[in-house]
Amino acid sequence: MNDSDDTSLIRRDCGDVGIVEYSDFHCDTPLKFALGGELKSFNVRYETYGRLNEDRSNAILVCHALTGDHHCAGVYSLSDKKSGWWNNIIGPQKPLDTNKWFVICSNCIGGCRGTTGPSSINPATGERYNLTFPAITMRDIVAVEERLVSHLGIKKLAMIIGGSMGGMQALQWAIDFPDRAEKICALATTARQNAQAIAFNEVGRSAIMQDPVWNGGNYKLERIPSVGLGIARMMAHITYLSDKGLEGKFGRSHEKIRPEEIFKPSFEIENYLHHQGQSFVNRFDANTYLYFTRALDLFDLYSYGSLEKAFEPVRAKTLVVGFTSDWLFPPEQNREIVRALLRMGKTASYAEIKSDLGHDSFLIHSPKLYKLVEYFLNV
Amino acid sequence: MNDSDDTSLIRRDCGDVGIVEYSDFHCDTPLKFALGGELKSFNVRYETYGRLNEDRSNAILVCHALTGDHHCAGVYSLSDKKSGWWNNIIGPQKPLDTNKWFVICSNCIGGCRGTTGPSSINPATGERYNLTFPAITMRDIVAVEERLVSHLGIKKLAMIIGGSMGGMQALQWAIDFPDRAEKICALATTARQNAQAIAFNEVGRSAIMQDPVWNGGNYKLERIPSVGLGIARMMAHITYLSDKGLEGKFGRSHEKIRPEEIFKPSFEIENYLHHQGQSFVNRFDANTYLYFTRALDLFDLYSYGSLEKAFEPVRAKTLVVGFTSDWLFPPEQNREIVRALLRMGKTASYAEIKSDLGHDSFLIHSPKLYKLVEYFLNV
Repeated sequence: MNDSDDTSLIRRDCGDVGIVEYSDFHCDTPLKFALGGELKSFNVRYETYGRLNEDRSNAILVCHALTGDHHCAGVYSLSDKKSGWWNNIIGPQKPLDTNKWFVICSNCIGGCRGTTGPSSINPATGERYNLTFPAITMRDIVAVEERLVSHLGIKKLAMIIGGSMGGMQALQWAIDFPDRAEKICALATTARQNAQAIAFNEVGRSAIMQDPVWNGGNYKLERIPSVGLGIARMMAHITYLSDKGLEGKFGRSHEKIRPEEIFKPSFEIENYLHHQGQSFVNRFDANTYLYFTRALDLFDLYSYGSLEKAFEPVRAKTLVVGFTSDWLFPPEQNREIVRALLRMGKTASYAEIKSDLGHDSFLIHSPKLYKLVEYFLNV
Repeated sequence: MNDSDDTSLIRRDCGDVGIVEYSDFHCDTPLKFALGGELKSFNVRYETYGRLNEDRSNAILVCHALTGDHHCAGVYSLSDKKSGWWNNIIGPQKPLDTNKWFVICSNCIGGCRGTTGPSSINPATGERYNLTFPAITMRDIVAVEERLVSHLGIKKLAMIIGGSMGGMQALQWAIDFPDRAEKICALATTARQNAQAIAFNEVGRSAIMQDPVWNGGNYKLERIPSVGLGIARMMAHITYLSDKGLEGKFGRSHEKIRPEEIFKPSFEIENYLHHQGQSFVNRFDANTYLYFTRALDLFDLYSYGSLEKAFEPVRAKTLVVGFTSDWLFPPEQNREIVRALLRMGKTASYAEIKSDLGHDSFLIHSPKLYKLVEYFLNV
């Protein structure tokens, strides 16, 4: 593809949304956080694909996972080689068909990709918020998304969809704003972060916070705690994949092991992980990583008294999808969400997709997932 | 128990080996390492429990795992509150019955608990070896153990037993010294380190080697790379347990979450992990951790051409035990060892123990494991 091709051609040929731009929603209505603290004003960066219909009934909200952002489809320029993170599912004639649906995705509050977060300047001080940013919960993330959806003039979303932390947001929406979504689609998620997942997050946070460069969160943006953040990402990345998937992709493939450089990464899996760590460090803020992982840890729908009680207000039809090799939020945890919804007489379905690709299965090309989502959305 | 009690009383009452002392075997016969490099002389620290019989036929060699050492049973004094790491299985009337058997356990070459390793002084330079220590493989570890066993005048061991890295040693013994052991008992182990296990090791090594205090391995013993080593241990510790086990033991139990200290460890699992990290840092050398994890990564019995080919020389009867919740070296990997042995016409059995305690199940009180080991040893 060279620069003389026009974007409509891309659109027709590959079913992609083509070149996209982000928008900013500046909100001056103060935001009170669930655990205390407030922002007098804040920005939400978002993208939309497709066209909102006249009665504003065709909007789908996509919620991003821990390290995602608002850019989930399309490219920023013809030379941009990397499409948005969920480009495989969003676009003309794709499951989230932008010929029919108006797809919205925003960077979560606390984020580092344009939405106000710890790395943003606090207008009151002229300095970065860093750790003075309020503690974030899934309720706050969803509250901000609701502001955006209202700002766009949408009373009721056709669907809210997300995987992992995005799935938690979808569930929280159904509880906090029961009349604002027709359908909820939660993938590879859980109703509560369990001990093992908290444990991995805490190791990641410790790596960041014990990196001397972190400096209580007050690092310079020219010199970030890249060692700690890289370690956190490398470790977390393992939890997004699976034993079998890694074995199939990398096995024990390695360069010649040189005894005089015995600790140099020589196995392919080692180089792959280092690459993952490095590219993450270049795009993600360490303090946002702390805030978002803590929001995950704090997520516990059982804290309403019971899962059933949490789901009492739910009115949206719900589809939950689990993936067999997901050991971060294993199928059993996905299933439990639907069991509780059904016990409360709600309309809910559970589907389990056989996959060797682990937690990240929801992000990866999967005709089975596409069919499920398409059917659920259009039925 | 107060200081006036004598040790024989402990022995009778609790079936423990009582107060023990370690011994040192100074070996002046140079040791050539499999990947190159040699030591002109070295020390092996070891302990023995029970009494060697006249025909020296009742000796059992216990091989330790990654972070273990030679002190696997008994206490060093009456006030010593911590018994050796496998005290539950070794002692009078325990599965490794010291009334009947002579149990030997040594600290592996490269270790940091008395056996020569990277933190030992190189007599040629008067400085610590650090990264000038030769690269270690399981073959080298076993070669040194063989020297010790010969030094003790034992021609044939009644059994070699170990879990995890200890199980790898047992298998390597059976291959490298087929006439030197009657029986091999390998627990929670694998015939080759797979991609996921290498991945976790590499994250741990990266945490250590990127800790500025590590300094190319030349840290001062008064100021060790405790941040990196602690992170490595916290992460690895999660892999030794299981989702279900952690959920049962810790769940989401937490102190009051204080929004103004949102990143302070508040969940029990977090405090537990920090405790594990801290106590490890106080007892283990960072460079040894690098060398041993690399020896694990390099372990690959398939590299003989096939597992069957690797096992061709084996003459020992073999028992392999897997644990259902072990996701580091899952049952399938344990089973594969026995399948290959059986395909080669060897005498081998596999047993799988249902357990929620993960990889570390082999270290934990388990009447089922005790019975298996006792039966295998005495049959």
